[in-house]
This record gives sequence, C-alpha cells and structure tokens, in this order.
Amino acid sequence: MPITLYELCGANQAHRFSPYCWRAKMAIAHKGFEIEGIATPFTQIREVAGGVSATVPVIEDNGKVVSDSWDIALYLEETYPDRPSLFGGPSGMALTRFVESWVDMSVTPRIGSLVIKDIHDILAPADQEYFRKSREAKIGRTLEEVQMGREDRIDLLHQALAPLSKMVKFQPYLGGTAPLYADYILFGALKWPHVSSAFELLKEGDPIHQWFERCQALYDGIGHSAVKVSG
Amino acid sequence: MPITLYELCGANQAHRFSPYCWRAKMAIAHKGFEIEGIATPFTQIREVAGGVSATVPVIEDNGKVVSDSWDIALYLEETYPDRPSLFGGPSGMALTRFVESWVDMSVTPRIGSLVIKDIHDILAPADQEYFRKSREAKIGRTLEEVQMGREDRIDLLHQALAPLSKMVKFQPYLGGTAPLYADYILFGALKWPHVSSAFELLKEGDPIHQWFERCQALYDGIGHSAVKVSG
Repeated sequence: MPITLYELCGANQAHRFSPYCWRAKMAIAHKGFEIEGIATPFTQIREVAGGVSATVPVIEDNGKVVSDSWDIALYLEETYPDRPSLFGGPSGMALTRFVESWVDMSVTPRIGSLVIKDIHDILAPADQEYFRKSREAKIGRTLEEVQMGREDRIDLLHQALAPLSKMVKFQPYLGGTAPLYADYILFGALKWPHVSSAFELLKEGDPIHQWFERCQALYDGIGHSAVKVSG
Repeated sequence: MPITLYELCGANQAHRFSPYCWRAKMAIAHKGFEIEGIATPFTQIREVAGGVSATVPVIEDNGKVVSDSWDIALYLEETYPDRPSLFGGPSGMALTRFVESWVDMSVTPRIGSLVIKDIHDILAPADQEYFRKSREAKIGRTLEEVQMGREDRIDLLHQALAPLSKMVKFQPYLGGTAPLYADYILFGALKWPHVSSAFELLKEGDPIHQWFERCQALYDGIGHSAVKVSG
C-alpha cells in the first residue's frame, strides 16, 4: 500500500516545490514505498488529515498520521527498521541533525533570497496573497526587494555549498557510497528552486551539480520526473 | 603504553595550538589512551619519525607511525575497535567527512583571518619566518593586512557557526548525547585561536561557547588544562 504524502503545490498542481516535502518524499522512496502525493495549496493545509498541522509534509500510513519532515523520517525509521536505514544508526542520526541545522541555517536562507519572488509567482492567487503577507511580515521587505540583484548574490550560495564540493572528492554522497536522509535534506533545499524557478543556481559540470544529478536519478528518477517551471 | 603525538608548539613549548593536532589529541583521549605530546616547531617537522610527513599531527603507537589527522582517526578506529567508537559506524564516518569538509571550508578560513598575526607572534623566530613567508605567499597579503579590522568580521564567524547553535537545541554534541570525532574536528578549529590569541571569538553564555566548554571538560579537562597565551 502506498504512503500518502500531502505536499505543497503551485497553481499548476504538478509543481511540487516544497523543500521539506521533498525530504519526506525521498525518505519514503528510500524505504521502498510507493508514494501517493496529494497536491496541497498553502491555504488548504488546515484541511489535511483533520487539521493536524499548520505545515506540510503530512503523511498517512495505514491510518497513522505524522507531520514534520524530521518526525516523518523518524517514524519511517522506527516503523520499518528492516528496510534500508535512513540514518545508519544513532550516531548517523545525530550527525544528520547537524546536517539539517546546516541546511536550515546556511543554505536555505540563501536560496530563498534568490527565488522567493519566483516561488510566489507559481502559486495560485489565494496562496500568493498568503505567501506575500506572511513572508514580507517576517522579512520586513517586499519579495521583489529580497530577490533583486540576485545575480550578485549567487556566489554566497556557492560559498555556503563549498563543504559539499570538498566532500565529494572523498565520497559520492553525504551518506558515503550510498545516499542517506542527510542527502535528501540538502537535495530538498535545491529541488525547491529547481522546480519553482528558471534561475539556474548550479553550474553544469560543477561537483555540486553532479551530486544533485545523482540524487535526481535515485528511485527510478523521482527527482528527474518532477515537473518544473519552463524557463 | 601512551601514544606519542607530535604536535605543533610556539616559542613557549607549552603552547600547543594546531587545530589538526587537537583533532588527533582528542581522538586518542576518546579511545582511552594516555598521550605523550612532543612539542614540535614548524621548522622541525621533517625531523619527526624519520621525516615521514610535511605536517603534524604524527603519532607513534607501538612502533607504528601514522600521519594526517583523518588517517590517525581511522587508524585508531580500526586498530582499537573494542574501545569507544569515534564514528559510530560507516554512516557516521561518512557524515563525519562532511563535517570535516564544513569545518575546513566554512569555519577554519574565517578563524584564520581573525588570528593569523597572533599565531605568528607566539612562534619562535625561525618558525615566524617560515610561517610568514609560506602564508603570505599563499594569501597574497601580509599577515597584518589579513588580520586588520577583525572586530568587523567576527560576525561572519558566528554566522558560519549558526548550524551548531541550532543543533544544540536538540542534542549536546554533534555525536548526539556523547561526543564523537566530528565534535573534535570543530573543537580543534576553535582551540586553535583559544590557545594562540587573546582575542575572544565566542561570547560567554552563547550556545556555541557552552558546547565548547563541554568539550573542554572532556577526558579530565584535557582542553581546560592546555596553556593559552595571556590576554
């Protein structure tokens, strides 16, 4: 039986762009389950599974509802210990918490500042209104102001990703010879602009781009098959 | 029998400041061995153990000589598998490679730019000459120019360390409830200026400072007992 994944969508429901939903999607695929992805606009999250959560991802698995990407990964690991591990044991799980913190603090904000207006633009009208109001209140600037001059800021993202460029000299994935949940955390952060923006963040042939493409190809190309905005 | 650790020293041989030597020192202590630390000036590294390495740390353990901090950690893990693990398994080891890359690319250069002249100043005259020549050739600026205006750049270091600030909300160490080699990699990077400079990089009471103090207290306070320059 597939696991149901409620995930953010754009006005075009094929646009599934949420970085946190990508973490959950890849984690489910890693565990070998089929995914039933349910398109969920921002303004309808509270209608999901009885309104359990203000955010997606939310999953339903055999009647069990779990929200929050980290809790979903833990749930999958604990419920399906005989399937491929997402963490490789307690030490791997602890170190993955560090990777999550690194992505959240050092990577995600820099990507957001490059594509936040593009994300807005792919949303349905009601979601656009919610997104603009909530993000602008938090940031204190308009989405247009935040994104402006992004060509000059892309180097800051590449600087933030320099650790990955170095790491792939030693091993193809954060997980080593094969990917782990830590890879999916970063992959989700990069899949977010990849789906929602025509602005290219990674340079073709760059080691980070190569890592991204390796992740795209996983699980029958679940990443490759995602619909992205046209350039 | 203790493990011999050749480690960098200043003009005052009690100043053991090398970030890479601190990685090895903490790894040896983690495995429960006594350490015989041999003070080694930059310009005498080639006299260590028959000139096997251009850099320290170098260790000697039962006649076996190993150089390079990562290789030393691997050696200890493989040679003493029944003692406390430095990585917590293959996945932990792979994720530790990522942490190492993060420290090397995102943390170490920022610390270096804050204290490089101070490091120079604690060295013996012959080492000062070597250090200035080699570093200035690499950087293309004088040590004084690099360090100048550091008060305005310390925020860049705190930004780089933001992932740790977030992580410690979930767990006290990168290794989880107890430290692993990943902690020692970052600890070494911060012990480097702590020993060699009176410039304070961490704010008292800050979560990163608290983590640093936890690491200082490990193994009978091996970190605390290190001699640092007077302010």
